[in-house]
Amino acid sequence: MNNFFDKNVFLGNKTSKKLYKEVKALPIFDYHCHLSPKEIAEDRKFYNLGELWLEGDHYKWRLMRANGADEEYVTGKADYKSKFFEFAKAAENAAGNAVYHWIHLELKKYFCIDKPLNSDTAEEIWNKTKEMMKDGSFSAQKLILKSNVEAVFTTDDPADTLEYHKAIKDSSFPVRVSPSCRPDMAICGITKPEFKAYIEKAEKVSSVKIDSIDGMEEFLTKRIKFFAENGCKVSDISLTTLPTTVGTKEDADKALKATLSGEEITEKMTSDYVSYLLVFVAKEYKTNDIAQQLHMSALRNNNSNLFAKAGADSGNDSVAKIADIDALRNLLDAMAKNNGLPKTIVYTLNNANYYELATMIGNFWGENGGNLQLGAAWWFCDHLEGIKEQLKMCSATGLLGKFNGMLTDSRSFTSYARHDYFRRILCTYVGGLVENGEFEENAAKKLVKNLSIENARNFFSIK
Amino acid sequence: MNNFFDKNVFLGNKTSKKLYKEVKALPIFDYHCHLSPKEIAEDRKFYNLGELWLEGDHYKWRLMRANGADEEYVTGKADYKSKFFEFAKAAENAAGNAVYHWIHLELKKYFCIDKPLNSDTAEEIWNKTKEMMKDGSFSAQKLILKSNVEAVFTTDDPADTLEYHKAIKDSSFPVRVSPSCRPDMAICGITKPEFKAYIEKAEKVSSVKIDSIDGMEEFLTKRIKFFAENGCKVSDISLTTLPTTVGTKEDADKALKATLSGEEITEKMTSDYVSYLLVFVAKEYKTNDIAQQLHMSALRNNNSNLFAKAGADSGNDSVAKIADIDALRNLLDAMAKNNGLPKTIVYTLNNANYYELATMIGNFWGENGGNLQLGAAWWFCDHLEGIKEQLKMCSATGLLGKFNGMLTDSRSFTSYARHDYFRRILCTYVGGLVENGEFEENAAKKLVKNLSIENARNFFSIK
Amino acid sequence: MNNFFDKNVFLGNKTSKKLYKEVKALPIFDYHCHLSPKEIAEDRKFYNLGELWLEGDHYKWRLMRANGADEEYVTGKADYKSKFFEFAKAAENAAGNAVYHWIHLELKKYFCIDKPLNSDTAEEIWNKTKEMMKDGSFSAQKLILKSNVEAVFTTDDPADTLEYHKAIKDSSFPVRVSPSCRPDMAICGITKPEFKAYIEKAEKVSSVKIDSIDGMEEFLTKRIKFFAENGCKVSDISLTTLPTTVGTKEDADKALKATLSGEEITEKMTSDYVSYLLVFVAKEYKTNDIAQQLHMSALRNNNSNLFAKAGADSGNDSVAKIADIDALRNLLDAMAKNNGLPKTIVYTLNNANYYELATMIGNFWGENGGNLQLGAAWWFCDHLEGIKEQLKMCSATGLLGKFNGMLTDSRSFTSYARHDYFRRILCTYVGGLVENGEFEENAAKKLVKNLSIENARNFFSIK
Repeated sequence: MNNFFDKNVFLGNKTSKKLYKEVKALPIFDYHCHLSPKEIAEDRKFYNLGELWLEGDHYKWRLMRANGADEEYVTGKADYKSKFFEFAKAAENAAGNAVYHWIHLELKKYFCIDKPLNSDTAEEIWNKTKEMMKDGSFSAQKLILKSNVEAVFTTDDPADTLEYHKAIKDSSFPVRVSPSCRPDMAICGITKPEFKAYIEKAEKVSSVKIDSIDGMEEFLTKRIKFFAENGCKVSDISLTTLPTTVGTKEDADKALKATLSGEEITEKMTSDYVSYLLVFVAKEYKTNDIAQQLHMSALRNNNSNLFAKAGADSGNDSVAKIADIDALRNLLDAMAKNNGLPKTIVYTLNNANYYELATMIGNFWGENGGNLQLGAAWWFCDHLEGIKEQLKMCSATGLLGKFNGMLTDSRSFTSYARHDYFRRILCTYVGGLVENGEFEENAAKKLVKNLSIENARNFFSIK
Repeated sequence: MNNFFDKNVFLGNKTSKKLYKEVKALPIFDYHCHLSPKEIAEDRKFYNLGELWLEGDHYKWRLMRANGADEEYVTGKADYKSKFFEFAKAAENAAGNAVYHWIHLELKKYFCIDKPLNSDTAEEIWNKTKEMMKDGSFSAQKLILKSNVEAVFTTDDPADTLEYHKAIKDSSFPVRVSPSCRPDMAICGITKPEFKAYIEKAEKVSSVKIDSIDGMEEFLTKRIKFFAENGCKVSDISLTTLPTTVGTKEDADKALKATLSGEEITEKMTSDYVSYLLVFVAKEYKTNDIAQQLHMSALRNNNSNLFAKAGADSGNDSVAKIADIDALRNLLDAMAKNNGLPKTIVYTLNNANYYELATMIGNFWGENGGNLQLGAAWWFCDHLEGIKEQLKMCSATGLLGKFNGMLTDSRSFTSYARHDYFRRILCTYVGGLVENGEFEENAAKKLVKNLSIENARNFFSIK
Repeated sequence: MNNFFDKNVFLGNKTSKKLYKEVKALPIFDYHCHLSPKEIAEDRKFYNLGELWLEGDHYKWRLMRANGADEEYVTGKADYKSKFFEFAKAAENAAGNAVYHWIHLELKKYFCIDKPLNSDTAEEIWNKTKEMMKDGSFSAQKLILKSNVEAVFTTDDPADTLEYHKAIKDSSFPVRVSPSCRPDMAICGITKPEFKAYIEKAEKVSSVKIDSIDGMEEFLTKRIKFFAENGCKVSDISLTTLPTTVGTKEDADKALKATLSGEEITEKMTSDYVSYLLVFVAKEYKTNDIAQQLHMSALRNNNSNLFAKAGADSGNDSVAKIADIDALRNLLDAMAKNNGLPKTIVYTLNNANYYELATMIGNFWGENGGNLQLGAAWWFCDHLEGIKEQLKMCSATGLLGKFNGMLTDSRSFTSYARHDYFRRILCTYVGGLVENGEFEENAAKKLVKNLSIENARNFFSIK
């Protein structure tokens, strides 16, 4: 029996408490997040919990709406204090939700507060935290340092100049901040209205004429190399659905040229283009020792009214249909046949195809030294039960001992508490194995350390 | 360690025992069931367990068939005592099944029996219960009163006269018994052979000529208002699959007229008609402060031999494919754009799209003050593990604290034990959160009370 | 708290320890495996753990590849000792994996070793086990006897002569070794290049001319009868997807004749042929008191590079899409309408349709005395969590007390440890029910005995 967010919170058995001692103080390797390189470079400061928590966090926005808050207090023009009070009311109903867990871990870690946030405590917590933040000590860089972070991988478009990454590197900031290459627009954006403008931007930054698939290949090749030179170790792509064909270069060329000349292209042409380029960049990633992350089954901007009011990334996304496993096989197989299957991490929002995904990647382990894995529990799944489920799935279908462990996937500088959250859940899971008599305590200690940091260092070739 | 169905049965941790004390004696708000208003109005009496349990309960029928019972003893002409003995044999093999749980909770609650039902005890239990029932004390009204029920929402067609509801209201029976509007035939029945006869009945009861979509709209508008005047607070609809289009009024008119003139209509026409009317009634519900319940993924009458022998609702239904999440988005979005998204509860038999459903409704919380929720574990899912899973899903994807809690969905007057079942499982789940250090005991007490009754009262605007 | 693979390993509560005493020493009824009748007949001997464990076990091969082992050490030409050392390295990372559980149960049961296998212990374990195996005591027959097995059902094609089964029967080997009829090639092989050669083989063994559906029916009828005469009690079929039509005899005849005359047939024709024959053999099985096993959702040979290198059954298979539940209904319904629904066991690799499958078969219980069941957790699902999930699903959707329990599905003579694994998990599950107060201890003892052996004996009419 633990007390409310005491030192043993989430540690569910005796052995987990021993294991947690081994990992508690280890540094954090955050290999996927959405932190702003600009804010890190400029060391942005935060002065109250409304600003820190509610400026851009669509997880919290959803809970506020669920609790009946008017949009004014969610993404609207209400002041931060009012927003915070609305959020506190929602928190009161959020038992068992990951947001409830995170905010209390954050209150404890960054503010030494161990009270529950609710209507009664909101005023006191608002005042106390505001007082602590007023000296500017809650800045991007100070929070990263205080959180004992050793590496941060941000999310960046290949057309990005990486100017802020360079600025950080040239500064005295001692933490590795590296870009990740996320060519969503170049590859999946082909049917979007913004595609043409994107091509112009891409041409400008790369000095490559992109009027054919050759041009697109040259652009991507150059930028991937440029990213690699700037420390990039991982790429990313969001795939709501998977392409159902594997296109040839000619197919892709035809689709691109048609689009650029203003024609509407068919679903098959889109699929050809997307799949051809996915296979193409995979090989480039492999060449440059960059891993690929596939983020699958996120369905965006579902409520038209809300989209009109609040735009993208406003808590208007949800879990899409499961990935077509035949399509994933064809894609991975095409990469392997092309001798270009890089290290790969597959994430899904839809755990209804965990078995399909986890066992499909296992067919390709022989192609790249075993470096394909089911990614950490993601977004709607990154709560206590979801993390436990993902750990069990890793164990059941492969080698848990090789899993890279947690990432924040976050826009917030205090979200590092999610690593602590993961470590506690991990220790409880592994502690359970030990107490079940199926795993030794010493091996367990090594395992939780590896999953807390060592495996990520190794996977991304950073020591 | 609890003893067989002792006072702590299903209470799995220390804190759950404390929490259960808070909710044990609270009244029951049964916001969805299939009780017969006629049987309530006429105060039907039951004289033995065969009649009470086996007359119409397809859950139990399935288990009897699974145990090898001849149909004679299931839906056939065997006497109730023989049927009860066959059922007792099946119960012996039903460890962990919800039916096993319910019957023992019922034996305990209504008959003070705490023995397991099996071949050895069947005679004794039959005799003892028959003795207790012989004075007519097991009647519809007495069982409802004894069960401490404060509200019962039955399930009724908009073409129903509600005569029995009126009779109950005019009587001295002190429990609220309200109708729910379930326009399955009017909306989804368009391709059924019974549709034309239904239209005639609907015309008669409403004095509206239904020869166009205008007529259908008038019928539905009138009846929804009539239901609201008679205390209706919730509607219902069963959707094996969701319409894949969102039809216009013209589309719907075309489909209805074609059907009424005897033409066979296409799948798209059916979809247009169904979707148009779903959006239409949604707005009417909103206007009349009626919530909508969507019951998805039930596949009916699967075994032709059994259907020929025993008809509908004979234990011949099972879990259908998951709902098409894009179709649900389009439907909810159309309701929201029409400014007519009522309070909504979404149920599914197929938990493989819990994540899709639970996160999809979350996109629309801003449209109606957060009043969309994932419904209680339903039918094949309403067992201990299924209830736990639904509670975890509510927590993970939204605000558990706003969930309406349990309903019986039952045809039986002793099924109120299912509310006790739910409360015990709820207390165990929430007790676990407290013992994990992630929730406070006092907040937990408030939470379990809200989910036992307060939230339903609030959601349905009944105090 | 249990120690590493001590006598209580996997027994997770007090009651489970009592229950396990009841079943520990019961014989094993292995009603589905892939043991070689030839190896049993010839009493093949094994001389080291590499040969015993790594010659043909694709479960272990996958883990080795996941750990980065070169194919040389997996299916390649490296010597067994080197392979074993590579495997030991992989085992080190395999916490929670079923292979990790099995190997340590096997080390304990067959070699009295209770150390974890890893890089440090590999040499010692290799030497100790080799020493124990050098006298030839690790032979097919001796291992079966030592494992207390009372029946083994192998997997055989209807065109098989069953010569080794006859040899075993004629020998003094006291264990029942019976064939299972698996007509994958005759039924599902119609579009495969090997089909014609298969037909020739089938004609030869049966002396039936197979140039029409009548010929195919005669072949299957004769061979099913022949198998039954040779002790066959169960059949099997692997269905990656289900046929979407239910073909008539004429449809099937057309498809077969077209194929035999060298034409390519359409998907619908394939579906007609497959479904017609599935319904046909079902009736033959029923006539001969043979149960049918449907193994669904295995996707084969996914990685082309690996298939080129290592061929089929090399750890290159994974979980396919869920079965189309409408197709399954149509198939079972066609069998039932044909008065030919035999005892049926339905397995799936994809637990995302457990609810659909488990509840669909329940619609047909009345057709054959309740003898349809959800099969034991299979292949990628046969780990601790997967077994628990399957047991819960059996309880939730039907009568756990009638479940047949475990099988090995294995090619290895020491895989009987999987029955012990199952019994421990079963006792923990049922022990949990008892401690929850929802089941009695004496009934629980009977239940675990039935699921350990009695039910399989009854289901397959063998006493």
